[in-house]
Amino acid sequence: MDPRFPTGQFVFDPTPTPEKRRDAIAAIAAFPAELKVAMATARMDQPYREGGWTARQVVHHVADSHMNAFVRFRLALTEDRPTIKPYNEAEWAKLADTKLDPAISAQILDGLHQRWHVMLLAMSEADFSREAIHPDHGPRSIDWFLQLYAWHGRHHIGHLKLTAAA
Amino acid sequence: MDPRFPTGQFVFDPTPTPEKRRDAIAAIAAFPAELKVAMATARMDQPYREGGWTARQVVHHVADSHMNAFVRFRLALTEDRPTIKPYNEAEWAKLADTKLDPAISAQILDGLHQRWHVMLLAMSEADFSREAIHPDHGPRSIDWFLQLYAWHGRHHIGHLKLTAAA
Amino acid sequence: MDPRFPTGQFVFDPTPTPEKRRDAIAAIAAFPAELKVAMATARMDQPYREGGWTARQVVHHVADSHMNAFVRFRLALTEDRPTIKPYNEAEWAKLADTKLDPAISAQILDGLHQRWHVMLLAMSEADFSREAIHPDHGPRSIDWFLQLYAWHGRHHIGHLKLTAAA
Amino acid sequence: MDPRFPTGQFVFDPTPTPEKRRDAIAAIAAFPAELKVAMATARMDQPYREGGWTARQVVHHVADSHMNAFVRFRLALTEDRPTIKPYNEAEWAKLADTKLDPAISAQILDGLHQRWHVMLLAMSEADFSREAIHPDHGPRSIDWFLQLYAWHGRHHIGHLKLTAAA
Repeated sequence: MDPRFPTGQFVFDPTPTPEKRRDAIAAIAAFPAELKVAMATARMDQPYREGGWTARQVVHHVADSHMNAFVRFRLALTEDRPTIKPYNEAEWAKLADTKLDPAISAQILDGLHQRWHVMLLAMSEADFSREAIHPDHGPRSIDWFLQLYAWHGRHHIGHLKLTAAA
Repeated sequence: MDPRFPTGQFVFDPTPTPEKRRDAIAAIAAFPAELKVAMATARMDQPYREGGWTARQVVHHVADSHMNAFVRFRLALTEDRPTIKPYNEAEWAKLADTKLDPAISAQILDGLHQRWHVMLLAMSEADFSREAIHPDHGPRSIDWFLQLYAWHGRHHIGHLKLTAAA
Repeated sequence: MDPRFPTGQFVFDPTPTPEKRRDAIAAIAAFPAELKVAMATARMDQPYREGGWTARQVVHHVADSHMNAFVRFRLALTEDRPTIKPYNEAEWAKLADTKLDPAISAQILDGLHQRWHVMLLAMSEADFSREAIHPDHGPRSIDWFLQLYAWHGRHHIGHLKLTAAA
Repeated sequence: MDPRFPTGQFVFDPTPTPEKRRDAIAAIAAFPAELKVAMATARMDQPYREGGWTARQVVHHVADSHMNAFVRFRLALTEDRPTIKPYNEAEWAKLADTKLDPAISAQILDGLHQRWHVMLLAMSEADFSREAIHPDHGPRSIDWFLQLYAWHGRHHIGHLKLTAAA
């Protein structure tokens, strides 16, 4: 197993069944509890691979990433094909607050995913085709973002598990 | 008193003393506890003024706004004069999750302001002059954003108090 | 669509992939928020079909059912092939408390599914093969119960939606 | 005082006066609020006696126990002398979810006791003599179960108070 991709690389399904979409939405709901279980055995100052982030940085990164994701969903839902702002995740993970107790970011994620889940449950069929423009990669649908972040949470939980096993 | 601006309108001080900057940073730290006190007596489904947001919408808006703010600070600290992405706060405040228990957003803000505060405390003197570009209003320094959000939290706490008094 | 089975009848997959099992566990986590969304538009005193339960009875039934389910999982995890006790769901749905505000049962389910989800996340691979004996139907594995209740929640949410559309 | 029985051991009154029965029913109604008061000063990770459960385990146990109790009342009301299923409370109290925030089980109990109380208030005089069969102890009347669980809630609130005093 490639430790960079413990759950495999992200693969987008452009024609998701209702069940697939429903499962991706449920993954957003389930994530905070899955995270807490993985955090219970993670070694917070252990890198998940040689030269990689520590478990602590991983948790803070997920909060950074999912706050940006939440912003992107809301932009796509309230504007006509907005251009989103990427961010430098490597530099963000070096800022001073990423040394804090990761429970602080778990708390942010707990509330954030509750709001995100309810926002998703209220979306119409057509809303899933709404798009945001990534300045480098071009247009991406909400279906794409949904599948990406359902994958992304488990991807980093895989990293946390590697620090427990290390 | 104009109920739209219970603490007065925002005024930027372009040459803050160290004390003024320190107080603005302390306001970021103090906000979650101040919010909880104001929420204890707010009437959550009461608009703070005729035609205005309910207290519930105000709390969810502050979480929306301060997540965007946190992103802007991090962009300004890790990129060279990045252009930030505005958002349509009126439309965001109508999304389905803004009907949730406002304690959910208070929980997000509690963790978020802890990280924000520690990020601010670690900044150098020079960092406060770093800039981000607002696409409509032009360049804004971190000092400007810091003073703005120190004001912004209390501004909306003022709205919450109006729903208790109404 | 047969209104008795708005999401189709339950079909057990005896050899679930890790992804299928993970999605069924996530469905347990996601259910309380899905329920609240469906309750927001359900007409509580409207039967979901001619001669069927009202939406109110459906919600109280789900609490009855999922409390029994939680008991069955715990029995299967802590005893060697225990025989479980069925119950008469039709008679239970006529008891006086099923006329109460369905928000009361939604509150029970909210806490119950949090505990259930964390119990599931802590299970070993082997635990999913543990069995309980239904006195009429014979042995059933935890995998069977898990898939059943992941389906069961959405099954009844389908009924609630029918009362909104009726 | 024996810390195992802070309110004394359970004693069944086989010929309860109407006042005694009424008080036992009121104890079911009053329990969630009494629990919250006791939780406010309990030390959640403190065992209530040497080698005993922590306060946290006590609260989760009460939810486990009273969900089973609610099931037993409903079985006795809807079947003719059903045989109930005991459970291994010591093993249940070790499952992973008993490490969760005890507020989650308090929330379950809050809704559960509301339903239980209304179910009890709707019962006829004759219903209190209906029986369920415990596989080890033989037949028990609803009057017996009612007195038992009225005692049981306060019994464990006594344990919570011991963790505050410890």
